[in-house]
Amino acid sequence: MSERGLLIVLSGPSGVGKGTVRKALFSQPDINLHYSVSVTTRKPREGEVDGVDYFFKTREEFEQMIRENKLLEWAEYVGNYYGTPIDYVEKTLQEGKDVFLEIEVQGAMQVRKVFPEGLFIFLAPPSLSELEKRIISRGTESAEHIQNRLKAAKEELEMMDAYDYVVENDKVELACERIKAIVMAEHCRRERVAKRYKRMLGVE
Amino acid sequence: MSERGLLIVLSGPSGVGKGTVRKALFSQPDINLHYSVSVTTRKPREGEVDGVDYFFKTREEFEQMIRENKLLEWAEYVGNYYGTPIDYVEKTLQEGKDVFLEIEVQGAMQVRKVFPEGLFIFLAPPSLSELEKRIISRGTESAEHIQNRLKAAKEELEMMDAYDYVVENDKVELACERIKAIVMAEHCRRERVAKRYKRMLGVE
Repeated sequence: MSERGLLIVLSGPSGVGKGTVRKALFSQPDINLHYSVSVTTRKPREGEVDGVDYFFKTREEFEQMIRENKLLEWAEYVGNYYGTPIDYVEKTLQEGKDVFLEIEVQGAMQVRKVFPEGLFIFLAPPSLSELEKRIISRGTESAEHIQNRLKAAKEELEMMDAYDYVVENDKVELACERIKAIVMAEHCRRERVAKRYKRMLGVE
Repeated sequence: MSERGLLIVLSGPSGVGKGTVRKALFSQPDINLHYSVSVTTRKPREGEVDGVDYFFKTREEFEQMIRENKLLEWAEYVGNYYGTPIDYVEKTLQEGKDVFLEIEVQGAMQVRKVFPEGLFIFLAPPSLSELEKRIISRGTESAEHIQNRLKAAKEELEMMDAYDYVVENDKVELACERIKAIVMAEHCRRERVAKRYKRMLGVE
């Protein structure tokens, strides 16, 4: 009966600060997104709470979830499994609530196949604007340093091709503001609002 | 050299409060949009300032602007001409600044032809949510009243087809917040950011 929620996927190169942005976003009082907690086989770090930071599972339990198709996406890093339980995502979207995932790039591409209508946000390092400044004010930096950054920027450029939005993580608060704006704007998309109108008016 | 600004067009059915929302939006200190002042042949009302509220022109001056293709869109209402000077819009967009127009629906359709890449925002009366409530809590309103509102909603639905976004004007502050979110989100669109990256990196 009610409108399906939006699936928002935040991803980006490792080390860009996805976890920091996600935590800052969910620490805001007015946030109306539902965070989908990941499953992992890695040991809890100090302060991490089961069901809040992760669902901590054994390898056997995780492999059973894979076999039973209970994961929307999963991957193995440094000997540990990480994945997104599909049940929570589906149930929450069906309730008309927006679901937020913070996952690695490989995982995001898996989710894209199942939810092509999701909003895929690429969190980018602030290298672009920094790079621009450095190129403009040449001489303050070694040519090699600039070359390395140019190479990284080219890789990021290729990676971001599969995303709908790019949010630069120059400042965590700004990145949060941009993500919130994207979600708000997407709720105002004409296709979405018109669909709601049509359903209500019984027009096809 | 610099990226072109966005053209944002706010329109909607007459009486929906376009002017009120535009004024509230531009009274905010952090607003980074450039309002394109319209040209009109109607007489200034009390308190209206030439060049701020409108550029006030004679019919002869206005008709000369039409002949010289100096208007992006124009129309005649109740014996007066209203139009948007194209020079300001073009110059400001080229400087990389976002331009904001608040115009009637016919004018918006003219602008769409010249600037298909613009952001077209339809300001909708809060009738949709109100209507929903009324239909749910039947009996408090006459059937005729509901019928009239249903008819209006159907007309709005047709009108909004040519727009990218629909912003409900339930509260002026909320409508402003949504418009700002749309502009911010559009600046994060991957196509736009990737273009900037590519230009900087010299990649095609």
